[in-house]
Amino acid sequence: MKKLNDWINRGLPDLCDQMSETLGGACNLCSKDGRVNMSTRKSAYEALDSLLEVLFPGCYAREQFDTCDVSLFVGNHMRHAAAILGKLLEFAFRHRCDIGLCDGGCDCETMAADTVIHLLEQLPDIHAVLMTDVRAAYQGDPAAVSVNEIVLSYPGIEAVATHRIAHELYLHGVPLIPRIMSERAHHRTGIDIHPGASIGKGFFIDHGTGVVIGETCRIGENVKLYQGVTLGALSFARDESGNPVKGVKRHPDIEDSVTIYAGATILGGDTVIGHHSIIGGNVWLTHSVPPYSKVFLNPPKHCVVNWDPNGNGGKGE
Amino acid sequence: MKKLNDWINRGLPDLCDQMSETLGGACNLCSKDGRVNMSTRKSAYEALDSLLEVLFPGCYAREQFDTCDVSLFVGNHMRHAAAILGKLLEFAFRHRCDIGLCDGGCDCETMAADTVIHLLEQLPDIHAVLMTDVRAAYQGDPAAVSVNEIVLSYPGIEAVATHRIAHELYLHGVPLIPRIMSERAHHRTGIDIHPGASIGKGFFIDHGTGVVIGETCRIGENVKLYQGVTLGALSFARDESGNPVKGVKRHPDIEDSVTIYAGATILGGDTVIGHHSIIGGNVWLTHSVPPYSKVFLNPPKHCVVNWDPNGNGGKGE
Amino acid sequence: MKKLNDWINRGLPDLCDQMSETLGGACNLCSKDGRVNMSTRKSAYEALDSLLEVLFPGCYAREQFDTCDVSLFVGNHMRHAAAILGKLLEFAFRHRCDIGLCDGGCDCETMAADTVIHLLEQLPDIHAVLMTDVRAAYQGDPAAVSVNEIVLSYPGIEAVATHRIAHELYLHGVPLIPRIMSERAHHRTGIDIHPGASIGKGFFIDHGTGVVIGETCRIGENVKLYQGVTLGALSFARDESGNPVKGVKRHPDIEDSVTIYAGATILGGDTVIGHHSIIGGNVWLTHSVPPYSKVFLNPPKHCVVNWDPNGNGGKGE
Repeated sequence: MKKLNDWINRGLPDLCDQMSETLGGACNLCSKDGRVNMSTRKSAYEALDSLLEVLFPGCYAREQFDTCDVSLFVGNHMRHAAAILGKLLEFAFRHRCDIGLCDGGCDCETMAADTVIHLLEQLPDIHAVLMTDVRAAYQGDPAAVSVNEIVLSYPGIEAVATHRIAHELYLHGVPLIPRIMSERAHHRTGIDIHPGASIGKGFFIDHGTGVVIGETCRIGENVKLYQGVTLGALSFARDESGNPVKGVKRHPDIEDSVTIYAGATILGGDTVIGHHSIIGGNVWLTHSVPPYSKVFLNPPKHCVVNWDPNGNGGKGE
Repeated sequence: MKKLNDWINRGLPDLCDQMSETLGGACNLCSKDGRVNMSTRKSAYEALDSLLEVLFPGCYAREQFDTCDVSLFVGNHMRHAAAILGKLLEFAFRHRCDIGLCDGGCDCETMAADTVIHLLEQLPDIHAVLMTDVRAAYQGDPAAVSVNEIVLSYPGIEAVATHRIAHELYLHGVPLIPRIMSERAHHRTGIDIHPGASIGKGFFIDHGTGVVIGETCRIGENVKLYQGVTLGALSFARDESGNPVKGVKRHPDIEDSVTIYAGATILGGDTVIGHHSIIGGNVWLTHSVPPYSKVFLNPPKHCVVNWDPNGNGGKGE
Repeated sequence: MKKLNDWINRGLPDLCDQMSETLGGACNLCSKDGRVNMSTRKSAYEALDSLLEVLFPGCYAREQFDTCDVSLFVGNHMRHAAAILGKLLEFAFRHRCDIGLCDGGCDCETMAADTVIHLLEQLPDIHAVLMTDVRAAYQGDPAAVSVNEIVLSYPGIEAVATHRIAHELYLHGVPLIPRIMSERAHHRTGIDIHPGASIGKGFFIDHGTGVVIGETCRIGENVKLYQGVTLGALSFARDESGNPVKGVKRHPDIEDSVTIYAGATILGGDTVIGHHSIIGGNVWLTHSVPPYSKVFLNPPKHCVVNWDPNGNGGKGE
């Protein structure tokens, strides 16, 4: 490694200068105090894990604990989560000020404190809703043997539990952190729920990989999705400078007791799927359907031919 | 953070009490000894990693080792896996007793010991089958340069290796742990194979994200799947209380030498895909097809229009 | 655990011998020095993380740092990455010699040094291209609030940043490491881009789970993909021994300013998607289309029926 070591000593310093200069323009990507980065992400994950431990201590606890005294465990983890979130939300609010996204004069510290307190006060309600989600999973999947199995191993529960926390932060206008949390669930489960989406109780996502639920979706109660379902935008408006107009309703509404099978794509802010409808797999739908609808693909063309399996094993058509 | 700190000291204790009370009903989610939780999950991952090291020491070893003496390495890791799995399976069997899913009187410790011994004794056979899977990957993907590249970087191999271990535990009736292992592979690879599925040798999943293989699937030899393929349930029966009936055959059979392209969905316990068939991408199939079938989607409608690319870049239709 | 412990002491040693013997044939999976394994993978991840920190210090830094002196930070991380990569690439080149994939007489150390130096010298250019990708994400997603949010939480950026690094290594013929890097991004984001693919600037993948981009794809500038898009092979030739012929153009070309919606599958080395085309969701396309094309699925069959939602909640058809 002599050649490389020589270069590291002699060639690299100039390259570093060049790289630093190049980065100059990207220093808008730095927070003023260098605190909004991967270490923020790590803290957000730690806060999220603690909140999940509070919501399902019997399953999400990361260590053995005395189940006779759940209150000690819950108390410790709420304190821990509150302390981390307090600092984290303050960074995040300040960062929004730094990059000029607020109109100035925010009391970032108080906003952070109020939001943390509000979130923690919601935990009993969030827990109650999550228990309806767990029950929906148990009733919706013949392969589920016990409730513990669902909480310990179903990715849909982790994604929805994360969403119900991130959504509270989103409603309080917290920048960055809710998206970091939702992307953590996305990374771990393949389920991408924007923190802005509003989702009723008894929600079950089975398998889940590839599910996308957009920011302005509204989902009713007892809805069931399978893997690969997209609830997305059909198109969006742009302003004069070509940037997309933010904050417009772009994603569909799914009413109560709808089931959507694997790979279906439903798009558009005016699209409403009426209650008790069933949307078949791989359907591509960009308009509303009334309650009690069933929507399917045309059956595929099907042919039986003689072919030589040894001649070409790699045919894709 | 004065406001938040004050609240943590004064407001939080009451909230903790409230939360603990709320959780009361969910203490069915606690194992009696508080041992079936994320720490269980961590142990299951560690056991799985050790078994993978035994199966592919040259690639899955987590540290450098003397390749001249593979037997020392293998011996150490088998002992390590056996010790962890012994405790883990005992917890899991006991937990099933705790929540009333067995008829009582189980000798959980002996069941755990017998299962661990059986699993380890299967490792040479599992290794032999996995080598056929690796060869199938090499022969099925022109991008594969070497066998080592496949074992080191193909998610399909990790998912199938995990499955072949989890399936043995499933066959011995081990609760929780096989699903935790399969969800670990799902989380890491996007490939969701229920531990119940039975899969023949020479099995290759290319790319793999979004693949779902249900509990009662039976897959023959030399089958090849691409990303996004679902082998799932069409519907399922419910008992009087509305819970799904467990244990019924709900997922398809795939016979030998079938290839299924990206995004195809095949559903139903009576569905049989005859040997040497090819199922095209994005097909939605709920009935059987005979051997040597080729099944495709109708070709998509295709239109060429003049449009102004600067006018609206976000059209989704 | 007496039974298990006894077996570990008495039964396991014989099984270890048997397993070691079984593994004999798989010792082709060992590198000569036992260094190409999971510890290699770990080092490749560490090198990749350091390079990402250099490219986006404001977001990807794993610790707080003094943003007034970005050059110190950048210098440290470039040195760190260079040192790790030097060793790693030497292992990888040597391993290729060991398994007989090169024609012998390589100076693996010099090849490693040259490649590392080249990669680091490319970083300013890679950074410039990545900034066009970040801008494309901002302009392509109404849900994006700030550039920092995109770099911190969009999986598409992580996948594309990883790809632009891995692609440089691929162009220099580095074995194993580029695929390990691309699979790391695949594992974290569900986006599977083969290091061989060539991708123009202003590239945006939204959501991303299930995206597959094959080795010989060529993608122009300002292309936008949604989740579940496959740019894959239609079929491939085999040599006399039944192994696929490597190195042939098998994947499509996507020209400038094309948008491809969720779940579309485009296959074949002769397939060219003309510039400014729009490919609708779930389309399956195996032939070329001219510029300014719009390609869609036939609208799905749609029926509204009366059915009893309480009678069977699990209907999949």
